[in-house]
Amino acid sequence: MSLKRILYYTGRILIVASVLMLLPVIVALVYREHKMILPFLIPAAAASLTGMFLMLFNPHGRYKASEGFTITAVSWLVISLFGCLPFIISREIPHFIDAFFETVSGFTTTGASIIGKSTTPGFIGGNVENMARSLLFWRSFTHWIGGMGVLAFGIALFPVLKNKGGSEEGGSEAHILRAESPGPTYGKLVSKLRFNTRILYGMYLGLTVLEILFLSLGGMPLFDSLVHSFGTAGTGGFSIYADGIMHYGNVYYEMVIAVFMILFGINFNVYYFMLIRRFSSAFKNEEVKWYLGIVGASVGVLMINTLVRNVYSTVGEAFRYSFFQTASIITTTGYATADFANTWPAFSQTVLVVLMFIGACAGSTGGGMKVSRLVILVKTAIREIRRTVKPKSVYIVRCDSDAVEHSVVMNVCGYFVVYVLLTALSTLVVSLDGMSTTTSFTAVVACFNNIGPGLGDVGPLGSYSEFSVLSKSVLSLDMLLGRLEIFPILVALAPSAWKNK
Amino acid sequence: MSLKRILYYTGRILIVASVLMLLPVIVALVYREHKMILPFLIPAAAASLTGMFLMLFNPHGRYKASEGFTITAVSWLVISLFGCLPFIISREIPHFIDAFFETVSGFTTTGASIIGKSTTPGFIGGNVENMARSLLFWRSFTHWIGGMGVLAFGIALFPVLKNKGGSEEGGSEAHILRAESPGPTYGKLVSKLRFNTRILYGMYLGLTVLEILFLSLGGMPLFDSLVHSFGTAGTGGFSIYADGIMHYGNVYYEMVIAVFMILFGINFNVYYFMLIRRFSSAFKNEEVKWYLGIVGASVGVLMINTLVRNVYSTVGEAFRYSFFQTASIITTTGYATADFANTWPAFSQTVLVVLMFIGACAGSTGGGMKVSRLVILVKTAIREIRRTVKPKSVYIVRCDSDAVEHSVVMNVCGYFVVYVLLTALSTLVVSLDGMSTTTSFTAVVACFNNIGPGLGDVGPLGSYSEFSVLSKSVLSLDMLLGRLEIFPILVALAPSAWKNK
Repeated sequence: MSLKRILYYTGRILIVASVLMLLPVIVALVYREHKMILPFLIPAAAASLTGMFLMLFNPHGRYKASEGFTITAVSWLVISLFGCLPFIISREIPHFIDAFFETVSGFTTTGASIIGKSTTPGFIGGNVENMARSLLFWRSFTHWIGGMGVLAFGIALFPVLKNKGGSEEGGSEAHILRAESPGPTYGKLVSKLRFNTRILYGMYLGLTVLEILFLSLGGMPLFDSLVHSFGTAGTGGFSIYADGIMHYGNVYYEMVIAVFMILFGINFNVYYFMLIRRFSSAFKNEEVKWYLGIVGASVGVLMINTLVRNVYSTVGEAFRYSFFQTASIITTTGYATADFANTWPAFSQTVLVVLMFIGACAGSTGGGMKVSRLVILVKTAIREIRRTVKPKSVYIVRCDSDAVEHSVVMNVCGYFVVYVLLTALSTLVVSLDGMSTTTSFTAVVACFNNIGPGLGDVGPLGSYSEFSVLSKSVLSLDMLLGRLEIFPILVALAPSAWKNK
Repeated sequence: MSLKRILYYTGRILIVASVLMLLPVIVALVYREHKMILPFLIPAAAASLTGMFLMLFNPHGRYKASEGFTITAVSWLVISLFGCLPFIISREIPHFIDAFFETVSGFTTTGASIIGKSTTPGFIGGNVENMARSLLFWRSFTHWIGGMGVLAFGIALFPVLKNKGGSEEGGSEAHILRAESPGPTYGKLVSKLRFNTRILYGMYLGLTVLEILFLSLGGMPLFDSLVHSFGTAGTGGFSIYADGIMHYGNVYYEMVIAVFMILFGINFNVYYFMLIRRFSSAFKNEEVKWYLGIVGASVGVLMINTLVRNVYSTVGEAFRYSFFQTASIITTTGYATADFANTWPAFSQTVLVVLMFIGACAGSTGGGMKVSRLVILVKTAIREIRRTVKPKSVYIVRCDSDAVEHSVVMNVCGYFVVYVLLTALSTLVVSLDGMSTTTSFTAVVACFNNIGPGLGDVGPLGSYSEFSVLSKSVLSLDMLLGRLEIFPILVALAPSAWKNK
């Protein structure tokens, strides 16, 4: 692994981040929050100076996969460190660990927040509605940046970093993309089509603008619709109200946001196929079928359960809340229109926890384990049962009618194991704080899968503020691990990756 | 699959079960519980008549793997059905589902009990201390029978069913043994040594007698030491007191039971190696090293946590309770000397839940996922991370210095996936009862891993009586699935296994 190359590319990404930090300055000017200008300019300047310094390291030679992974991991960490400075400098979130947690939660599109219950004196961030507009904008904007991946946006902005076809032999920057794109990519779909990151961005931006339009047309103030569209697009979930989307109590907003959450949770390849008019390919995508099937089944089951248990009295009402919560949790967005942690029956809560683990489609902005991994895992499990019945037969795991390569199956299984082990390990550490088992466990699940709210004290109306510094650090790491699909960070930490230059 | 063969062998096993049901009759005679004689004689007669009828089906041709699996699954179910009759006929546990749950819990060596909180009028079983001695003997004896596996004891008793070397080609009854022996058997250790089930039984009986001796020498009444040794040997956990081993408050008993729990959780191959004086092989066993390492680490961590949180005030006390609980949970026995569900800190509870999942060694009487599976999973995960760093290198998963066959790795991964999926699915159904998430989840974990007590309402002093009939059925199925390592039951249910005779 070449340290120089890692420093160089981290530098480039820092410069992009510093440019993006100027946007909230405009917001501060618009809302006349003059004291907020320096808290953004100082870190922006620091980031761009650091970036320029790092770019002095001139890399040579070709990429290695492990370098792509490490650059990804290091960059997320570094931009989170610079990105949390406005909160600290403005004293709205005075403690480093809180500001860092909040920023990591933003960039990883988790949406878990320490804002809420805190009783620190002079801590404006104790109530999100008292915070400066420019800070709220930045907080939600990190979702939007994070949504498409810090590195992926770097690639789109710097032509030299453009994906040259995805082949490993090409010495291109495909490794960064590979580390970035969520979920397993079975088949060579992406590389065959020379999938252009700019097209990807066009679609992302287009969908975001569409949501802003729909929300504004319904009467939502522009600032609100911007912030909530950022939160939806990145499947993040930060809001500007303590009670989030509940604040409006508006069915139209809820349905618009729910539908867009579902849309941003779909594999973007599908939109690309639609764009190039290959509709048959778009509608054949097996993962999307499973995804929509799981959404439909969950909504049905939640509706029945909440109706039977008298949480809601009409089918319409039950649909409204069940649909929104299902969309929000499976896409790992984390917006809430119902306080499911306190008012929903146990069975419905368990359904939501299961959805937390599943997550959205690979190739979307959503987090979690990804539907495609679940499909491969279920098919592998069925194959193993079949093999037990007839040991001599050969069974192949198929997705989209293509055989899934054996190495992909092994990778998915390995991923699943690491995923479960890390969840257990994190829950162990977080439970040191002495919170209830439900709170500790779902806090880890919600952070690791980049959702935001969990159950118990970290429900939709709760907050992560009460956790210890150790727990907040572990949860921040979980958010990063989850967002980067675990392996990049573990690779960056693996001694063997650093041995031979 | 030949239905005839399945009926025939199920019949044989039923006859053995009917003979074993005569033992509690002796207990009833000794304790002058004359009204308990018929409740045992009637089901014993019914079982042997049914068995004889089933043996009229004369099978021909060779075994198939799927048949061995199905015979195993069907037999456990059938002997549980007959085994629960004494509870019902004596009216001490009047409801079928309760008696069935209790018997399945016995044969699967789970130790989860519906006895405790029930308020059913005339329900003697509401307090275990009021129950007839002969019933208590039978209840614990099912642990002992179950411990070595219903079929394995059938094999030992019927010379014709003896394991002929374990090769699939031999047309022998090895398939039943394979379905029965817990955990993955990497390598051909067992077959190479022509591992004799009678030797296995000798060791099992020897260890049990040793424990009875130790307990009796310490002053425990003979009946008590019999019952608790059965519970330890099968890693079951039924007691004759509502507060189990806590009842005695005796350090000596606790240490004897704890040490024997650990011993019964060790792979019996190790004892065999010791018996044939191949000590180097015995001490080289990697799984046992991990197992003892995990026990040691857990005891240490629990001691520190309970001391720091002032649950215990001296190191000796902390060791006493931490060691016992660790031994009890990792071996999936489920005896308790401390009410960990209510008095232990959250972190210690989480440690116990993690231990619940791990379970004991393969080839022991313990349940759970088994340490060897965990080791293979962890090594597979590490290999996948390494492969990410250096995609072109070849890494082999090794255990006991031997390469683990690829099909074993895939099987373990498949097992793990099914295991997690079934846990999630069962938790969903059980949560319909509206109990707390902790109760529903740990009830499933405790039953699926054949432990017994969980956390929340199903803690060491709690009971499973409050669950609905649906939940009790699901939990009974979980106990069977867990005990039979999932696949045999799924195979028995697979339509493809029944297609071509």
